Amino acid sequence: MDENELVNKLSDALGIEYEKLSKHIGRSIRLMKYGELNYVVFRRDLLGYREGTTILLGEEPLIVHGYPSIQRLAFIEGVSKHMIDNVVVEEKMNGYNVRVVYYMNNIYAITRGGYICPYTTARIRKLYSKNIKLAYQEYPDTILVGEVVGTENPYVIYDYPEARGFDYFIFDTMKKDKLQPLRIRDEIAEKYSLKTVRILDIINKRDIDRLKTIINRLEKERREGVVLKDPYQRVPPLKYTTIYINIRDIWEGMRYPFDEGRGYLFSRIVRLIAQGYEYDWNNTELDRIALKLGRAILEPAINSLKKRANGEIIASKYTLVFPSEDDLSKYIEYAESIGMDFIFRVVEKREDGCIVVELFKMKETHNIYTKMLKTGYSPLD
Amino acid sequence: MDENELVNKLSDALGIEYEKLSKHIGRSIRLMKYGELNYVVFRRDLLGYREGTTILLGEEPLIVHGYPSIQRLAFIEGVSKHMIDNVVVEEKMNGYNVRVVYYMNNIYAITRGGYICPYTTARIRKLYSKNIKLAYQEYPDTILVGEVVGTENPYVIYDYPEARGFDYFIFDTMKKDKLQPLRIRDEIAEKYSLKTVRILDIINKRDIDRLKTIINRLEKERREGVVLKDPYQRVPPLKYTTIYINIRDIWEGMRYPFDEGRGYLFSRIVRLIAQGYEYDWNNTELDRIALKLGRAILEPAINSLKKRANGEIIASKYTLVFPSEDDLSKYIEYAESIGMDFIFRVVEKREDGCIVVELFKMKETHNIYTKMLKTGYSPLD
Repeated sequence: MDENELVNKLSDALGIEYEKLSKHIGRSIRLMKYGELNYVVFRRDLLGYREGTTILLGEEPLIVHGYPSIQRLAFIEGVSKHMIDNVVVEEKMNGYNVRVVYYMNNIYAITRGGYICPYTTARIRKLYSKNIKLAYQEYPDTILVGEVVGTENPYVIYDYPEARGFDYFIFDTMKKDKLQPLRIRDEIAEKYSLKTVRILDIINKRDIDRLKTIINRLEKERREGVVLKDPYQRVPPLKYTTIYINIRDIWEGMRYPFDEGRGYLFSRIVRLIAQGYEYDWNNTELDRIALKLGRAILEPAINSLKKRANGEIIASKYTLVFPSEDDLSKYIEYAESIGMDFIFRVVEKREDGCIVVELFKMKETHNIYTKMLKTGYSPLD
Repeated sequence: MDENELVNKLSDALGIEYEKLSKHIGRSIRLMKYGELNYVVFRRDLLGYREGTTILLGEEPLIVHGYPSIQRLAFIEGVSKHMIDNVVVEEKMNGYNVRVVYYMNNIYAITRGGYICPYTTARIRKLYSKNIKLAYQEYPDTILVGEVVGTENPYVIYDYPEARGFDYFIFDTMKKDKLQPLRIRDEIAEKYSLKTVRILDIINKRDIDRLKTIINRLEKERREGVVLKDPYQRVPPLKYTTIYINIRDIWEGMRYPFDEGRGYLFSRIVRLIAQGYEYDWNNTELDRIALKLGRAILEPAINSLKKRANGEIIASKYTLVFPSEDDLSKYIEYAESIGMDFIFRVVEKREDGCIVVELFKMKETHNIYTKMLKTGYSPLD
């Protein structure tokens, strides 16, 4: 199909005029292809559709709505203002948001941004093909949303004892653009042996002390935080993250100060400021957190600069395990299509056909550090 | 004169067509008035003129070119790559950049951005009227550029033992848009009893150790840093600031995290990263700086949040001393014309006619903190 036909098809599927759509094609609405399947990505909120909305343009087009962004709490106490009565306290896992759909007899894994990720698709198909297929046969108009976590993925590396190198934990289900009551997710997960994120507690919205106790426990266990939900999703969920992860994010990001570092810094500092206020840190506590924060900012960034001065490449490294050669080549094609600057290195070909690959995503920090070292000039002012 | 006449006059003065100019008026080129004097400010690099260029539209228009931005060194060693042979090491003072001009029998103080600041003008007139007038009579086509420092100004408060509440230290002279050899500045300052910034040393560009010794001394004395210049300005100057001031700036800025804080943070962290690398901090040193950095980020911001929670206003406070009532009212008019959100409080009327005023500049942090505390939500993601 050429672009013209695709936009016509999209126009029919959305009930939006061709002209209205076509002017956004290429910028805000992107035409993509996964194997033979054409699909479309909404790269921002547009024409009544959320950022990250995907339209699969097979014979019968399917609209997969974007997952709504979740309001962040500055203060734990804020939960009592937002919620109605009871609050389901769920673990927020440190990974990446994936909607899994079953479409034209196949499973596709869609990232938060609305792209079908070939790597995630291949791994989820290998793990949960049957379960997901059966689930969608019983709940055809319900979309599973969950977190992919573990050490084997190209986005967020975090080692969870309960997850293998790669696993998928469902946290919501959606019908069209609406989040469904939590019991539907739990029902599906139980029936079809799918994993869900942990429910840590169900509390009354006024029971802030209990909520603080839960968060303090997560803090000690070095977990990311919580998502707080109304059991029936009558009001939108809220999220809250631990001091541990706020500082750890900065640490990870500051290995690439001009990439993730710059983006991570301010938002996470704002979270720490709110936490310092709500927990009323004394001088000793402030010193303890300040030292950690300061080191998280400086140490990884200085280490990267030393590495660059020693001639090393500054790139983020991911270990990926592809179930087959075909999955690998699909991923490389995808990485090129989204303009990723990367280097691949095959590390191992296993007997079961799996291919272990090291992926290096090149960083802007590499170029800026190179220039700094060469000229002696500072890159800012 | 109406706008039309002013643009015509500007067109003549610059030799640029009316149409080319008029489309920028109000946005990139701003028409301003100081008393009876009409003037124009270039708010960005445009039509061959630098950002901060001011054109005084009296009978004979005068173009006061913007002061060039100075390249910052990431590494002290970079100086040897940039310079020709000898390097004048001058103290960089922590204040604000002011061009002083003598025009139509009056002295005007122009800020870096190109505005005539009525406060600075009044104070400099009071201190150095005669000296500056005489200097300009001998050097009519030379513009003095210097730093206003001290505790009595509406921009940068920093207590220098050698400066009174308000003083002016010349660091350059310009002819048209060119920096002049340093001996001209020194000549003028000596002849007319004007102050200059300190010359700390004159070194060979390869004598990095000597330069590092100077910077280490400034570090201990809690001074801002150095500007490094070719004596004849054959190559542009360079600047380098101390770790002390990089962290102090963050501390000051983080009292208003959503205003100065956000802007100060990343650039100053980049400077510290480069310093950590060049000085090859060991673990103890890294801890010492990290703790200071972490506290500079968190403590002032948490304190401001506590203040707001206690119902206080979040605003930056300046003490200004106006030589006369007329100077005060000119300043209020100016503050309104540039859209400043401020509160004034007269503190004292001295016998000599001076009026002491407290100026509170309202901060966006005030509004964001207010909303955070009210809703419990985080302002970012």
